[in-house]
Amino acid sequence: MNKKIRLGVLGGGGDSLIGVLHRVASSMFSRYEIVGGVFNPDFNENVAFAKQIGIDTTRVYENFETMISEESKLDESQRMQVVSILTPNFLHYPMAKKLLENNFHVICEKPLTTSYQEALDLKKIQKEKNSVFAVTYTYTGYPMVRQMTKMISQGVIGNVQKVDVQYFQGWLNPIIHEKEKRSSTWRLDPKKSGSSCCLGDIGTHAFNMAELVTGMKVNTVLADLNTLYDDNPMDVDANILIRFSNNAKGVIRSSQIATGEENNLRISVYGAKGGLKWEQENPNYLSHLSDENPIQVLKSGHAYNDPLSLDGTKLPPGHPEGIFDSMGNIYKGVARAINNEPYDPAEFPSLEDGVRGMDFIERTLESNSNGNVWVELNK
Amino acid sequence: MNKKIRLGVLGGGGDSLIGVLHRVASSMFSRYEIVGGVFNPDFNENVAFAKQIGIDTTRVYENFETMISEESKLDESQRMQVVSILTPNFLHYPMAKKLLENNFHVICEKPLTTSYQEALDLKKIQKEKNSVFAVTYTYTGYPMVRQMTKMISQGVIGNVQKVDVQYFQGWLNPIIHEKEKRSSTWRLDPKKSGSSCCLGDIGTHAFNMAELVTGMKVNTVLADLNTLYDDNPMDVDANILIRFSNNAKGVIRSSQIATGEENNLRISVYGAKGGLKWEQENPNYLSHLSDENPIQVLKSGHAYNDPLSLDGTKLPPGHPEGIFDSMGNIYKGVARAINNEPYDPAEFPSLEDGVRGMDFIERTLESNSNGNVWVELNK
Amino acid sequence: MNKKIRLGVLGGGGDSLIGVLHRVASSMFSRYEIVGGVFNPDFNENVAFAKQIGIDTTRVYENFETMISEESKLDESQRMQVVSILTPNFLHYPMAKKLLENNFHVICEKPLTTSYQEALDLKKIQKEKNSVFAVTYTYTGYPMVRQMTKMISQGVIGNVQKVDVQYFQGWLNPIIHEKEKRSSTWRLDPKKSGSSCCLGDIGTHAFNMAELVTGMKVNTVLADLNTLYDDNPMDVDANILIRFSNNAKGVIRSSQIATGEENNLRISVYGAKGGLKWEQENPNYLSHLSDENPIQVLKSGHAYNDPLSLDGTKLPPGHPEGIFDSMGNIYKGVARAINNEPYDPAEFPSLEDGVRGMDFIERTLESNSNGNVWVELNK
Amino acid sequence: MNKKIRLGVLGGGGDSLIGVLHRVASSMFSRYEIVGGVFNPDFNENVAFAKQIGIDTTRVYENFETMISEESKLDESQRMQVVSILTPNFLHYPMAKKLLENNFHVICEKPLTTSYQEALDLKKIQKEKNSVFAVTYTYTGYPMVRQMTKMISQGVIGNVQKVDVQYFQGWLNPIIHEKEKRSSTWRLDPKKSGSSCCLGDIGTHAFNMAELVTGMKVNTVLADLNTLYDDNPMDVDANILIRFSNNAKGVIRSSQIATGEENNLRISVYGAKGGLKWEQENPNYLSHLSDENPIQVLKSGHAYNDPLSLDGTKLPPGHPEGIFDSMGNIYKGVARAINNEPYDPAEFPSLEDGVRGMDFIERTLESNSNGNVWVELNK
Repeated sequence: MNKKIRLGVLGGGGDSLIGVLHRVASSMFSRYEIVGGVFNPDFNENVAFAKQIGIDTTRVYENFETMISEESKLDESQRMQVVSILTPNFLHYPMAKKLLENNFHVICEKPLTTSYQEALDLKKIQKEKNSVFAVTYTYTGYPMVRQMTKMISQGVIGNVQKVDVQYFQGWLNPIIHEKEKRSSTWRLDPKKSGSSCCLGDIGTHAFNMAELVTGMKVNTVLADLNTLYDDNPMDVDANILIRFSNNAKGVIRSSQIATGEENNLRISVYGAKGGLKWEQENPNYLSHLSDENPIQVLKSGHAYNDPLSLDGTKLPPGHPEGIFDSMGNIYKGVARAINNEPYDPAEFPSLEDGVRGMDFIERTLESNSNGNVWVELNK
Repeated sequence: MNKKIRLGVLGGGGDSLIGVLHRVASSMFSRYEIVGGVFNPDFNENVAFAKQIGIDTTRVYENFETMISEESKLDESQRMQVVSILTPNFLHYPMAKKLLENNFHVICEKPLTTSYQEALDLKKIQKEKNSVFAVTYTYTGYPMVRQMTKMISQGVIGNVQKVDVQYFQGWLNPIIHEKEKRSSTWRLDPKKSGSSCCLGDIGTHAFNMAELVTGMKVNTVLADLNTLYDDNPMDVDANILIRFSNNAKGVIRSSQIATGEENNLRISVYGAKGGLKWEQENPNYLSHLSDENPIQVLKSGHAYNDPLSLDGTKLPPGHPEGIFDSMGNIYKGVARAINNEPYDPAEFPSLEDGVRGMDFIERTLESNSNGNVWVELNK
Repeated sequence: MNKKIRLGVLGGGGDSLIGVLHRVASSMFSRYEIVGGVFNPDFNENVAFAKQIGIDTTRVYENFETMISEESKLDESQRMQVVSILTPNFLHYPMAKKLLENNFHVICEKPLTTSYQEALDLKKIQKEKNSVFAVTYTYTGYPMVRQMTKMISQGVIGNVQKVDVQYFQGWLNPIIHEKEKRSSTWRLDPKKSGSSCCLGDIGTHAFNMAELVTGMKVNTVLADLNTLYDDNPMDVDANILIRFSNNAKGVIRSSQIATGEENNLRISVYGAKGGLKWEQENPNYLSHLSDENPIQVLKSGHAYNDPLSLDGTKLPPGHPEGIFDSMGNIYKGVARAINNEPYDPAEFPSLEDGVRGMDFIERTLESNSNGNVWVELNK
Repeated sequence: MNKKIRLGVLGGGGDSLIGVLHRVASSMFSRYEIVGGVFNPDFNENVAFAKQIGIDTTRVYENFETMISEESKLDESQRMQVVSILTPNFLHYPMAKKLLENNFHVICEKPLTTSYQEALDLKKIQKEKNSVFAVTYTYTGYPMVRQMTKMISQGVIGNVQKVDVQYFQGWLNPIIHEKEKRSSTWRLDPKKSGSSCCLGDIGTHAFNMAELVTGMKVNTVLADLNTLYDDNPMDVDANILIRFSNNAKGVIRSSQIATGEENNLRISVYGAKGGLKWEQENPNYLSHLSDENPIQVLKSGHAYNDPLSLDGTKLPPGHPEGIFDSMGNIYKGVARAINNEPYDPAEFPSLEDGVRGMDFIERTLESNSNGNVWVELNK
């Protein structure tokens, strides 16, 4: 019998949104079985939650250290193979580090850590252990993001000369204008949220998307961040000039005070032979522009798409798939990697992508605090 | 511990699209566990498929009769509680009948049966048994279809005066024009597919949607069907005038030869106080028109939506959910019904909806073959 | 010096919307000069209006009979060459008849007349006189309607197998539900408006569009009209099944009670090799669907468009042109015809198109009043 | 009799696109009569063109100096009142200067001049003469741009906190990559085109739009321009950070190498109470976002729009108007100003707007050449 991969989960209990996203994604291709974890900090709630989602409570643990030590004692055929980290940001590093050290594969939410240094540290350990490590930049699993990536790598639009990424949300607007609210929201508390609010939460997605689809590295950034109120120490809006290693230039615009916007991530890439445009809120469409021909609108599920894109679609064209399906594709790729099946590295974002993300956050903050100057990212 | 509902599955093995749709939907809210079934007609393939999706093969059966008799012997706490029927149409009736007679709940794909009479028969048995019976008109689970239904029932657009439903696909186009192909496609073979191709496959969805969102019954139909070629006995295109019990009129347009269309189901309902429009291929939007105000575009997940709509959204606005999520909502509603939890009847389409669908198909064919005349549906 | 065509105008004074549309259209290509007319029934208002729009009042007349007799006395080089008829419907026939008889060219608003018989009569006279006669189905002048027409005639989508036309407006909704209002609106008064409201005003546009773009003739119609209230004698909503001379079928849906709709005319045509879709409210786009390729979105002004389409665009792609530009294209075509320059008959709708429109209205009303039966159009 | 304003035209002859745009716009409301001008540098072509568009050739002149001196001799009731300047950029200044000095009103294409200093000089003269002077930022005449401006000034979205403007074209892409072509295109020749290509041609539109709709002034700019090839001295792509006098920040993105884009100008403004978004290629729509309500999509022509917006719509909602209509609205406003009728200053862009535009271009170039640093605009 084809055994499912034994998955542990850290965080994601109660009404956690990220929790349901990962659970559904993991179950989508009958590849994983959740065998235990630490869903909530409170043990009783933890157990109650496990019952609620139908999981055997014998492998629900008090904390992640206990989980790792207890699971490590189990037989190879029983112990968790991979663990998903869905906790607040500051716990990513200690959890991932210990998991790697104890030979677990890891699926970790973004941002990878709270500092570039921590991220480098994880990378070093992973190299030694040769573990599978995915960072869940969720949107990369969409079939049409995969298609865009493949088309650019295959030269369909020629050399990239212009990149424009936007990630606009408005959810902080009703909070930011009330002193009371903005000083009590954890996302705006550096102790809880880390050095950045907007960059860490969504700017890093935009950056990852830019590097993923173009296949190029951002060399330098120049940023103007906005806190909107002097008593707010955290960026809530980011306007960032970027330059790539070739002569391509671009902009990353990321905001949590774009009032009324929901989750408006979009990326446009223009090359010498054409342009490609994609929007997260209508994810099953990809527009292909060129100098002389009609606009081509590609849709997911069609045979004209690249095999990698098609691998991410479960139903024929016209049957919309969404963000759960996108995350499901990432989990499927990780499953293949864990099982040593052939897979395309583009099936899931790697630890290296997470490291780049942390570098981006730190360099961008540095550019802003140094007076909006160019800062180089690490190679 | 919260026990998951024990689900059996008939059909949906191999590369079946409907299979993956139901499996993912059933797992979405941690409410069901697939415990066995008959996935393929061939027993070896059946077992192999069960292994592939990680299911204990001891409850994989040779055929549905065996499954029902064996499962019926099991203890109440072990036996399947509900069975999903995903087979070709002609098997729906015998399977559902036997399942009902043996006290299983049923989830059945549409069209419910191959005749109105069979459908009435199922209804009679179900009434006696008081079983839960859902017919998977998948699109009814979308949050914005639910929102549209609630807004109309709450009088937001006033008395309905005009209904326009379209369901356009183009997949038969490359088949219909080649004599060889059209005579060898099972969908165009009345012996395998039943009396109707286009009406049975998609027209019935359009009809169900019209009755669902308006809360009104279609009284009479007048249809002009197209077979396109004289040697093709089956409708591939349907243009249907409809009248409701009040003075509202409308049109159902359904086609499988709308070349290049994918799954373009859309419904517009106009009342004395406003209009509402929804499209399946962009399912998270609902347009609300009125005489004097700007168009309002509602999106899923917002607090302004009805609780029934919000119950069908797992993530905040801007995180697209698709057809798997829609089917997942139907399964969630069925789970509540099975577990005697409170639920809104609008959470899943009932056996009665399936019966109406069969009546619609037969009356429409009758209208067409009698020279495009008005035919009354049964009350 | 290139002399402008001397244009007379009947109707269109005061705040008339149709008046400004024709005036702007006529001036668009420096081809016409308005030299006089009868803008208003009241002579003083008539003169005042002429002054307001900067026209020499010596050729402002008391009524159309006087205008025709006075203008007929003028020298060939001075007299009006063509006259635009923008009055209420019932005046179209007597005006056009007299103009033709006196050797004027005519541009006439739709519907051409108030009866099919009158239309035939005009056609007979025009044949004798060999005058230029255009019926202003305004939407036919859009570049992408022209492109659609040419692509279909060139076989791009193969044999047409399905036609779907919609023309939805909602402006009657606030009127129809109040007894007082609906009995005092001239559009709903058969004495003023003729035998039909919805068909005459907009259904005829939809019908013309169907025949224009397909290049095919509608053979038979079967209609279900709605008056919504028993005391309203006029159709305000029309659902019409249509059949063409080949095996193509289709639907024309036309309504003035589609609450909240503005001027939502759209046409979709599906053939054996592809589909084409166009919408009046976003007129510079044309979608081309096919079995296997991405959707192609054509935009006006591109070199890939047919010369006839390009002739209707004044600026490069991306500079939206609208309904004034569409009407301007019709006037340009008429100018070419009057000046005996080469032109494509598709540049403006002919008297024959107007005759077909009247036949459509009468046959559709006949179908409805005879119990929703098929009625053949005249050949 | 209501005399039309006597309009002279400099440039715009032959196939000039800007020529037809201004001619149609001027004729749209029966407010102007073109009485003469210098349409082409070559006198014979000039005269031929005048004949072609039906203008008396007696007032067609050899050059603008002759035109001004000859027209100045004419009687007050005969001489040109206003002159439209449609020539290449470097002629704007000498023409406008002489026209102002000789008491003509001026309508001038953008960019106003080739330097900020020239622009200031024109402003000084205009103040003395008190002439009407419009700079044709064409897009400002769209009804929904006017609506956006009014809504923001009325506080509908609260204090502005974020501004995002995009103006993407792709027309230089097929030119820029061929050395031969890029060195022979006049737009990329600083001697003919001035110091900037992209900023001067379209960036200035984006900047004007940002200041117009927000009613705020841009304080400082920080720009990263791209020339794409080292042998190309001119900017073809511009990424510009902007800061306003309050704490609002934003980005202007302007490009002529966004391959496949046509004329994709769009502006989004977010305030403490809502957001507004508009796109030039679909100009009759305006999206209004807020924290908690459905998206509102306003359309031109509705009574809910501001009178200034409604003044710019000639037909009821659903009848698309385009760029000719937008320019027509500007000409209408100028006519009112010339005739001393009441008008809203927002009806046409002023000389001051043109001056700001030149300041923006120079400061942006300065920021880029100084190493991408903040540069203040003049007050």
